[in-house]
Amino acid sequence: MAAPILTLTTDFGLLDHYAGTMKGVILGICPQARIVDISHEVTPFEIPEGAYVIAQAYRYFPPKTIHVVVVDPGVGSARRPVLMEAAGQYFVAPDNGVLSMIFSQVPHRMRLISNQNLFRKPVSRTFHGRDVFAPVAAHLAAGVPPPHIGELITDYLRPASMEPQRSGKRTWQGRILKIDRFGNMVTNFHIDQFPNLWRADFTLSAGPRETSILAGTYAEASPGELFAIVGSSGYIELSVAQGSAAKATGCGSGGPAELKIWS
Amino acid sequence: MAAPILTLTTDFGLLDHYAGTMKGVILGICPQARIVDISHEVTPFEIPEGAYVIAQAYRYFPPKTIHVVVVDPGVGSARRPVLMEAAGQYFVAPDNGVLSMIFSQVPHRMRLISNQNLFRKPVSRTFHGRDVFAPVAAHLAAGVPPPHIGELITDYLRPASMEPQRSGKRTWQGRILKIDRFGNMVTNFHIDQFPNLWRADFTLSAGPRETSILAGTYAEASPGELFAIVGSSGYIELSVAQGSAAKATGCGSGGPAELKIWS
Amino acid sequence: MAAPILTLTTDFGLLDHYAGTMKGVILGICPQARIVDISHEVTPFEIPEGAYVIAQAYRYFPPKTIHVVVVDPGVGSARRPVLMEAAGQYFVAPDNGVLSMIFSQVPHRMRLISNQNLFRKPVSRTFHGRDVFAPVAAHLAAGVPPPHIGELITDYLRPASMEPQRSGKRTWQGRILKIDRFGNMVTNFHIDQFPNLWRADFTLSAGPRETSILAGTYAEASPGELFAIVGSSGYIELSVAQGSAAKATGCGSGGPAELKIWS
Repeated sequence: MAAPILTLTTDFGLLDHYAGTMKGVILGICPQARIVDISHEVTPFEIPEGAYVIAQAYRYFPPKTIHVVVVDPGVGSARRPVLMEAAGQYFVAPDNGVLSMIFSQVPHRMRLISNQNLFRKPVSRTFHGRDVFAPVAAHLAAGVPPPHIGELITDYLRPASMEPQRSGKRTWQGRILKIDRFGNMVTNFHIDQFPNLWRADFTLSAGPRETSILAGTYAEASPGELFAIVGSSGYIELSVAQGSAAKATGCGSGGPAELKIWS
Repeated sequence: MAAPILTLTTDFGLLDHYAGTMKGVILGICPQARIVDISHEVTPFEIPEGAYVIAQAYRYFPPKTIHVVVVDPGVGSARRPVLMEAAGQYFVAPDNGVLSMIFSQVPHRMRLISNQNLFRKPVSRTFHGRDVFAPVAAHLAAGVPPPHIGELITDYLRPASMEPQRSGKRTWQGRILKIDRFGNMVTNFHIDQFPNLWRADFTLSAGPRETSILAGTYAEASPGELFAIVGSSGYIELSVAQGSAAKATGCGSGGPAELKIWS
Repeated sequence: MAAPILTLTTDFGLLDHYAGTMKGVILGICPQARIVDISHEVTPFEIPEGAYVIAQAYRYFPPKTIHVVVVDPGVGSARRPVLMEAAGQYFVAPDNGVLSMIFSQVPHRMRLISNQNLFRKPVSRTFHGRDVFAPVAAHLAAGVPPPHIGELITDYLRPASMEPQRSGKRTWQGRILKIDRFGNMVTNFHIDQFPNLWRADFTLSAGPRETSILAGTYAEASPGELFAIVGSSGYIELSVAQGSAAKATGCGSGGPAELKIWS
């Protein structure tokens, strides 16, 4: 039988011992677990960015993978921990919307994590990644069945839509989901929602800059030119060939983007 | 039998191949080793920060874990390599104080690593992480008993105390142990040494800023407000809710902090 | 039998889900694979730097290790994917010169990766790390023999030499291969090519600064002083004791360096 796989997605960064500490807790409970980092560099407290990162990554993992997602500005408050089952995989996270880009797209079941016997004691007020999320995920990996972790719930937090909003006959308001390492700006315009864009006369703008070019590959564009491209996840990205679109536009994660389709 | 766990704590960063190279050496000697990164982002040459990071992380790992700690400004000089046994775990490091926050707190035994048959040859002058610490740790993981690695010693380096010093009837001088990713400033004031702080009238200062607030959770504080909080390790931290205390105070790792308790 | 080892060297960074996604794809195909990060922080699009990083790291890994190297500015263009066998190990990479520091030094065989049955479908235009290189490497780890991956080729890309060029009786023109985390500047002057440097009267310069000192260890140099040292890979590095040579000289990766040997 293959060893269970646990992934970690957090905003803890790599400067500190936090991510390593979670791994120690996991291996203490489930020594055979395979631990994979998805990213620890989610912008601190940015729940939508965390939601985007895990939603893009999870589908490439094998069935029964357990994803631990800790972007948790409300740690220590009344926000609840949850366990979601979706797409044949598991997700352990705070109930703050960080799983919303997954549960808005695929069938799922959500449980309230309530079995405190599975927590690390004492539970600190500031580090539930170590004391709640990592140990619960490790117990799940070690064979504790989901119903022993908590009851199904339906009143989990559903944040306002992260989809583009139509603001006129020809115009949609969207947002920048993430700036990637290359300065590419991932928008929330998905090619499946705008399948005619390849043949359309359009303008995509962010900050003071705009483009009407939808390139097929990075190699097609001239160095320095701002252009749109369908990213590896299907979202339309603003890019500058061998440069940074984020620097060229001055825009950051969470900022607005606008799409106009002229014909 | 569970696979042996080796952790790595270094100041090598992730830009280079150094950490990956150590892992190659380890897997060549002990193919079944599970390797876990605690952090490679200790501030270069900052032994006290490395001492803090491993001291916070080790206790969350299972018995017999082997921790490799390489913050080693004296590489190539006469400083010695050591193997420490403490708390049922092992620590392989230079004898420069980087293990001092552990050995000042728990019973331990220290060995001088002297069995050069366990080293990678030739031993370079600049990269003992690859040539000494990684291979010795891997041989230990593969079953070489500690007495074959070296003799017990008692004359290892004990640096000046990292504890707060009382400087007056009401006043203690401390230091910033680490700035974490969120800009939280971890001080060396531990709640176990100041258990009455919850009921006290106190001032904790760093640089030009001070606070008299000890918050129970991050969620209690107003955005932008400087406050103290008991961190996940028990050390009192200076924080700014949804902001950076390090930026707010202008202080860095290693800088001074002062605690006054008025009543 | 030991589990197969796969390493990853990319310019994807750690901000995004890209590296984690590749790991999910690998574990889906070869669940027993041991995955080791060498670095994801190669300067974006810098093929020579990627070539240097993998060339320094691979030799410390066990036989049969599979190295996946993705520094791929031409993704989506006509550049081909290749599989190289060298030194008892495997290398999966784009055919853009990123393996050239290895194949210029050791016997090797190169194959064109042509068996599209091994790719992830559909193959995106922008992320061959996920869709081509990771799955091919994982199938190789799972036992697919190299001849099933593709035919041997000899017309792979051989970039212009990365060796120093003699420009006068006493003078060689070289380059900065990499700035490491400590600000050390790794040049392409290798001690094996200049074995008399220890006894020579020489000047090594980069930007406006030069040194005539070849130190045996970092500890020998005075703080702040620029000096040369033989790095852990044998390349001569410019360093500043407990400081950054890159800051002191103002030079970056890819910049020129000059060596004059007076006697």
